[in-house]
Amino acid sequence: MSTLMISSSTHSYQVVIKKGLRTQLKDHLDKKYAKVLVITDSKVGPLYLDEVINAFPEDVEVSHSIVSAGEASKSMEQYSNLLNACITNQLDRNSLIIGLGGGMVGDLSGFVASTYLRGVDFLQMPTSILAHDSSVGGKVAINHKQGKNLIGCFYSPIQVIYDTETLQTLPVEEIRSGYGEVVKHALLSDMSWCEQLLVEDLSALSYQQLEDHLTLGIQVKAEVVEQDEKEHGVRRHLNLGHTLAHAMEAELGYGEITHGEAVAIGIWFAMKISEDSFKVSLPTKSYVQWLIKNEYPIDTLLKVNPEKLVNRMRWDKKTIDNNIHFVLLEAVGSPTVEKISETKLHQYLNDFVEEVSQIDKRN
Amino acid sequence: MSTLMISSSTHSYQVVIKKGLRTQLKDHLDKKYAKVLVITDSKVGPLYLDEVINAFPEDVEVSHSIVSAGEASKSMEQYSNLLNACITNQLDRNSLIIGLGGGMVGDLSGFVASTYLRGVDFLQMPTSILAHDSSVGGKVAINHKQGKNLIGCFYSPIQVIYDTETLQTLPVEEIRSGYGEVVKHALLSDMSWCEQLLVEDLSALSYQQLEDHLTLGIQVKAEVVEQDEKEHGVRRHLNLGHTLAHAMEAELGYGEITHGEAVAIGIWFAMKISEDSFKVSLPTKSYVQWLIKNEYPIDTLLKVNPEKLVNRMRWDKKTIDNNIHFVLLEAVGSPTVEKISETKLHQYLNDFVEEVSQIDKRN
Repeated sequence: MSTLMISSSTHSYQVVIKKGLRTQLKDHLDKKYAKVLVITDSKVGPLYLDEVINAFPEDVEVSHSIVSAGEASKSMEQYSNLLNACITNQLDRNSLIIGLGGGMVGDLSGFVASTYLRGVDFLQMPTSILAHDSSVGGKVAINHKQGKNLIGCFYSPIQVIYDTETLQTLPVEEIRSGYGEVVKHALLSDMSWCEQLLVEDLSALSYQQLEDHLTLGIQVKAEVVEQDEKEHGVRRHLNLGHTLAHAMEAELGYGEITHGEAVAIGIWFAMKISEDSFKVSLPTKSYVQWLIKNEYPIDTLLKVNPEKLVNRMRWDKKTIDNNIHFVLLEAVGSPTVEKISETKLHQYLNDFVEEVSQIDKRN
Repeated sequence: MSTLMISSSTHSYQVVIKKGLRTQLKDHLDKKYAKVLVITDSKVGPLYLDEVINAFPEDVEVSHSIVSAGEASKSMEQYSNLLNACITNQLDRNSLIIGLGGGMVGDLSGFVASTYLRGVDFLQMPTSILAHDSSVGGKVAINHKQGKNLIGCFYSPIQVIYDTETLQTLPVEEIRSGYGEVVKHALLSDMSWCEQLLVEDLSALSYQQLEDHLTLGIQVKAEVVEQDEKEHGVRRHLNLGHTLAHAMEAELGYGEITHGEAVAIGIWFAMKISEDSFKVSLPTKSYVQWLIKNEYPIDTLLKVNPEKLVNRMRWDKKTIDNNIHFVLLEAVGSPTVEKISETKLHQYLNDFVEEVSQIDKRN
C-alpha cells in the first residue's frame, strides 16, 4: 500500500493506492457520512458499483447515478441531471459524493460536488491509470461544444482511494493511454525512473509495478501543483506533449485516439523540438522503441493534415506575436516553456510526419 | 468616499463606496483588461450600462449581456446562456466579468465568473442597498426549482465598486428591503448605531448617510465572514430574521414581498423570542415604530397561515429532534443560535400574529 499526502490551497488530502481498496472503504474513510451519492459510468458501474455500495455500513444511505461512458457525458445537461439527483436524494452539506471511474467521471462528479450547496465532500475512486493524473491537482470541469473543460472549478477531493485491482479490466489502449501520462511524469522528473520505465512491456505489469508507477506519477504531479495550483507558472510544464495531443484529438474528433496515446505522440514531438532547440541529447531513441514495442498508434498522426494541426496548435494556448508556447525539455527533469514561431513549427511538424511515416513503414 | 479592505480565504479585495463611481472605473481598477463582459439586467441596463461601458478606455473590448430582471434569471438556463456569451465574446483567463445590478445579478454573474475557465476576475457593481449584503462574503449561486441558491460556489470578487448614485433610482420597497439587512447588521453589532438608525426616515436619506450606512453594514458583514467564510460557526448569526423571512417568502411565492422587508419582519419576531427566552430588554418598541413609520408591509404576515409557516421553518435549517435553530439576541451586538421546540414556536408565532394584527388595526 502507498499513501501520499497532497496539499491543496484549501486542505491536505490523502491518496491511498492498493489492490482491493474498493471493498475496504470503511477502513479508510476519516468521517462518518449519513448520505453518500456514488457517480459512475455505464462501463465501470456494472463492474464495481455494487461492491462500493456494499462497502458502506448498513445505516449509511448510499444512492447512485450512472452516466453514459465517454467524454460526451461531461456536458451541461448531465451536470444539471446530477444536481437534480443530489436534490432528489436529499444530500445535505454533510453528505459525500464519490466519483467512481476514470477521468471523465472524476471531472464531472467533482464539478457537481464543488457546486452543490456551494461544495460538499468529494471522494475520488479512480479506475483508470490515466486518472492518476486528473485525480490530483483539483481541476474539475465539464466541456462546452467550443472546447474541453471550459466550465469548471479548482476543487480538491477529501481523499483519493485508488484500487489497482480495478485497473485489471482496462482495455489495452487505456493502459497505453494511462502510461502516456506516466511516462510524461517520468520525463519531467527523473532519468533513472525513465530508464526503468522505457524497458517495460505494458501488457505484463504486476500490481506492484502499477502501484509504484502510479505513486511516482502522483508524486511528480503533486510537487508541481503544490507549487502552482492555479497554473500561473510551473504547472504549465505538465502540458508536455499536450499541444500536439490536443490538436490531434480535436482534429480527429474525440474518441478516435485516447488522450494519453495522443500525449505520448506529442511528447515524442516535443523531444525532437527540444533536441534541436537546445542541442541536447534526450532518450528519444529508447522512447520511440518503447512506443513501438507497446503498439502506440503512431500512424494516427499520418491521418491528419499538418496544416490543420498547426492551426489548432495556434489556438491551444495563448499565441503572442505568432509564437506558439511549447513545453520542451532542456534535459530529462528540466522542463521549460519556449516560444516557437509558426514558420518553425510547420517545419518541425513536416520533419516529424516524415520520420513517423518512415518508422511506420518499417514496422 | 469610503474604502474597506475585505479578506477572503483566497485574496483581499477593496470595497469602494462613493457617489458617481460608475463613470470613473478606470481610476479604480488596479489591472488593465483587454476584454470585459458586463452582465446586467433589464431594469438596471437601460439606466447605467452605457455609462459603465463608456468608462473604459477605447482599446478595451467591452461586451455585455442583459438578463431579465427578477429572481427567475438565477436559473441553470440563464447560467448556461451567459457561459455561451463568455465563449462567443472570446473571454480568456485574463478577462474580467462585471456584475452590474442588485443581488440577483451579483449572484448569477459571480457564479459564471467562478466557473468560466475555472475562474476569471469578477468585479461587483451593486446598484441596490440590499446588495451591500450579498456583494461581500463570496457566496455566488443560482436557484434550483427545489430551492434558492442550491447551486453555487464561494468566490470573492477582485473589487466591489459601489456607486451610491445608482441607488437614487430604487423604488421605495427596494430601499426598505435594503434597510432590512442594514438594520440587521446594526442589531448584530452596535447599540449606538441602532439608536441612530431607528429614528431615520428612509425616504429622506442623504448620499452621505447612505454611504455611512452601507460602510457600517459591510464592516459588520466583513468581520463575520472573515472569521467564518464557509458558515460553520458565527456566519450563521447573519441569518438573524431569516428563518421566518424565508418561510414567508416561500409561502407567499417569491416576488410577493421583497427579501429585506421579510427579513425586517423576521427580525421583529426574533427580538420577541429573544426577550422572552433570555428575559432581556431589546429596543423592540423603537424598532416597531421604525417599521411602521417607514411603511414596512407588516400586514403581509397576516396573509399566510401560521401552521404552514411553522412547517416551512422546520425545513429551513437542519431540524434536530424537532428543534428549530433560531438566531436570537441576548443583547444588541450579542447574537446566539438557540433551539426552539416546534410547540414553543407555534405559541410564539400565534402571539406574534396577534400582536401584528392589533398594530395593523391601529395604523
